[in-house]
Amino acid sequence: MEATVKRISRSPITNKEYEIPSQPDDRKGIDEFLSHHPGKKVVVVQGLGFVGSVMGLVVANALTEEYAVIGIDLPSEAAYWKIRSINEGVFPVLASDPKIGLYYENSRMKKNYYASFDPYAYSKADVVVVDINLDVKKTSDPDTQDLTDYAIDLGPFKKAIEAIGMNCKEEVLVLVETTVPPGTTDKVVAPLLKDCLQKRGMPLDGLRVGHSYERVMPGPKYVDSIQNFYRVFAGVDEASADAVEKFLRTVIRTDEYPLTKLGHTNATEMAKVLENSFRAMNIAFMVEWSRFAEEAGVDIYEVVNAIRMRPTHKNIMLPGLGVGGYCLTKDPLLASWAKQHLFGSEEALVQSEKGVDINDKMPRYAFEFLRSQFPGSLKGKKILLLGVSYLNDVGDTRYTPVEVFYNWLEKEGAEISLHDPHVLYWEEKDIWVNQDLDKILENEFDVIVVTTGHKEYRNNSALIEKLNSKKAAFLYDTIGVWSNEEPGGGDQGALSKVYRD
Amino acid sequence: MEATVKRISRSPITNKEYEIPSQPDDRKGIDEFLSHHPGKKVVVVQGLGFVGSVMGLVVANALTEEYAVIGIDLPSEAAYWKIRSINEGVFPVLASDPKIGLYYENSRMKKNYYASFDPYAYSKADVVVVDINLDVKKTSDPDTQDLTDYAIDLGPFKKAIEAIGMNCKEEVLVLVETTVPPGTTDKVVAPLLKDCLQKRGMPLDGLRVGHSYERVMPGPKYVDSIQNFYRVFAGVDEASADAVEKFLRTVIRTDEYPLTKLGHTNATEMAKVLENSFRAMNIAFMVEWSRFAEEAGVDIYEVVNAIRMRPTHKNIMLPGLGVGGYCLTKDPLLASWAKQHLFGSEEALVQSEKGVDINDKMPRYAFEFLRSQFPGSLKGKKILLLGVSYLNDVGDTRYTPVEVFYNWLEKEGAEISLHDPHVLYWEEKDIWVNQDLDKILENEFDVIVVTTGHKEYRNNSALIEKLNSKKAAFLYDTIGVWSNEEPGGGDQGALSKVYRD
Repeated sequence: MEATVKRISRSPITNKEYEIPSQPDDRKGIDEFLSHHPGKKVVVVQGLGFVGSVMGLVVANALTEEYAVIGIDLPSEAAYWKIRSINEGVFPVLASDPKIGLYYENSRMKKNYYASFDPYAYSKADVVVVDINLDVKKTSDPDTQDLTDYAIDLGPFKKAIEAIGMNCKEEVLVLVETTVPPGTTDKVVAPLLKDCLQKRGMPLDGLRVGHSYERVMPGPKYVDSIQNFYRVFAGVDEASADAVEKFLRTVIRTDEYPLTKLGHTNATEMAKVLENSFRAMNIAFMVEWSRFAEEAGVDIYEVVNAIRMRPTHKNIMLPGLGVGGYCLTKDPLLASWAKQHLFGSEEALVQSEKGVDINDKMPRYAFEFLRSQFPGSLKGKKILLLGVSYLNDVGDTRYTPVEVFYNWLEKEGAEISLHDPHVLYWEEKDIWVNQDLDKILENEFDVIVVTTGHKEYRNNSALIEKLNSKKAAFLYDTIGVWSNEEPGGGDQGALSKVYRD
Repeated sequence: MEATVKRISRSPITNKEYEIPSQPDDRKGIDEFLSHHPGKKVVVVQGLGFVGSVMGLVVANALTEEYAVIGIDLPSEAAYWKIRSINEGVFPVLASDPKIGLYYENSRMKKNYYASFDPYAYSKADVVVVDINLDVKKTSDPDTQDLTDYAIDLGPFKKAIEAIGMNCKEEVLVLVETTVPPGTTDKVVAPLLKDCLQKRGMPLDGLRVGHSYERVMPGPKYVDSIQNFYRVFAGVDEASADAVEKFLRTVIRTDEYPLTKLGHTNATEMAKVLENSFRAMNIAFMVEWSRFAEEAGVDIYEVVNAIRMRPTHKNIMLPGLGVGGYCLTKDPLLASWAKQHLFGSEEALVQSEKGVDINDKMPRYAFEFLRSQFPGSLKGKKILLLGVSYLNDVGDTRYTPVEVFYNWLEKEGAEISLHDPHVLYWEEKDIWVNQDLDKILENEFDVIVVTTGHKEYRNNSALIEKLNSKKAAFLYDTIGVWSNEEPGGGDQGALSKVYRD
């Protein structure tokens, strides 16, 4: 008898546990699904994360075409539950956007969105949309949080592309939506797919490869950020560009949000990382200025709001606890890596790399400021963090700066409590998060820190009154959600205002 | 008999020469002027440069009050002609804004805008508006254009403030509009004025001191950029803030463009340099990316235009020949200097200083690219530069990047011709500039470079046709004015597209 180890994937939404199958075989499921959709084009979405799972929904609710959609992810602990969840009627992404529920219900009714883990699905696809992750591994100095090195391993990404190439039909459009180092679609994806087809003895003239980047914002306009938003696209050749355009027109509201076609996939890939690098850079720039404002006794929020009156300066960023999320924390590095490794440049994107470095250190500045307010240390101090996610009004904790801040506090021996109305379970830290603000405030805290600018904390005068009545608490607003409410008082914080009774 | 040396100040507009008086005495002129305006409040504008001369016009055409306005500048070669010119009926600033002529005619009719050089004027002023320059002296490596050092000499600025303090009335509002290192109004101007009043045995309680920065854009909306635009202001105390607000409300269209009051002059001063540093930084950021685009064979203009479709990214900058003008080239340094010298910080604004450094090197990159296209050197090559000013559709040559580019070409021994529809006379280089594009194009050139994005060059298909017909010329578009017109061809330039026949 053979010893078998059961592998389990658990849904953080339903808490249900699924046993991961040992064989990646779901032919029966896929065939059964497709038997309900004869004659329809098949779109396979590769990757069921924050982008892919909702992209699948949008394609299942396409505007001018009826598609049969299959979402594919790996039979891993992190992903397998999503596959099962989609098929069982629980959408795997919690979001405040009511369209998510609507679209999902609709796809359930039409039975046109199936999820699987079997690469066999690629053999049925007319279109494969690539929405998998491509991560950057950063190395930082543990003491200073200085970015000391970073590496990009294209291995898993190539393996995913290979899974398509070794299974796909002769005539297929592979549309990369993943944020990749510029050059990847042309220099990595297309050659790899062609290699695979050649190995399989198949002709290359039916293969179409393109790149179009999403601008997904998880939150109240999640679906709209895919379906009702501007898209930039390109193909590795004209036929590919045409195929991408034709597909996007069936899915995106291109009448209201015209498509922008660029001359080369290098250009679309660059546009995406340039957009995010621009934002990351603007934030890093403000970090330096908020420290200056602190020295000069100036309220940086007041200054930035004054500057925003000017139409050309509306998007100047406000400083905060730090920068989080999946894009801004890594995209400048993807670009700098591509410059050197895909285009042979001897120069990095120095300023863009520096921007990431500065942003990564923001939570440490905030921590150091807080520590400086307490003679001795923060050991044993009861500290409540208001907000865990990296972005206002959203439950996304990927690369949240609160994590770094939390880790520093934990290292100091503080007793930390967490509240976030949008985060039930903090996956990265494996911690359950409090949801009831009133209840948690019944406890006494030495320090209360606003770490995310959720609307539950912003302009909430009842909350401010309650906090002010808690005489013992040191209030530290790292985001500036109360910067306009406080009637003239308080010291300046490391990155923001502090209110002390 | 005493030997006297005649000092001459020449108007570049009329070419008229004025002998500079040896005694700074214009009491008679000032008294005569004021005798026409009994009972009116007197506003003295200190400095008759790009801001002050037009600010004087705007105050002379105030919305809800009739002021008697005196513009003051030094009896120097550079400035004396402006004083005479204003009094003689020729406004000293050439501008495409028709409102300049209208407002000036109106003030001539009402005889309410007089210019002088005698500090005696301050003794009559109810309001003094400070619009003098505060320069940064930069030191660069002559070979690399690397910014090696910079210095700020507050001496001349302090002297100007002292001239006010030693002459002004007890009750006066001194409103600083000059872009100063943050902290200057509170730490330098107010104490200096108080010192002067005390020396003169006068009480201090009638003195009001404030700061409000202009956002002047010389060009077709010159007057509107003062009168119909958002203003940020503060006073060194509440009474001063009130006085500033009262004055601004008589001059600026505050009904449509509400005033923003900040808590401290440190904050308004910081807002101004932060605004400009933000722009300078965004440009520096794009320099790095345009070099990446060049390596990747990507048209950066196409990419930036695609990104601008996104409302939050509308103000992403396009790369060009370089950064010019009086503000973006120095304001980040003013701020960094203030941080260290007025607020005692040990850290400079590193990123902001780096931004200036990078921008200053842009013309050198463009020059090096051009040189790389010609084996050997550019010695003896006939080169036509289209555009001399630093900004589209404006005749402002202050710190224009074209100057650095020109100097490099000159050093190489090129034969340079210049065209600019807005610049008759290039003051900084003491060169007359061609105005007739058709005529100058009758000559043969080895190289034609677009150095400013004037509308005469932009989207001008007749010009492009003519240039294309000049088979010998190497066309180098450093601005990208033709990036959308060229039907698919041309190599990438150092910072832009190049077209070669």
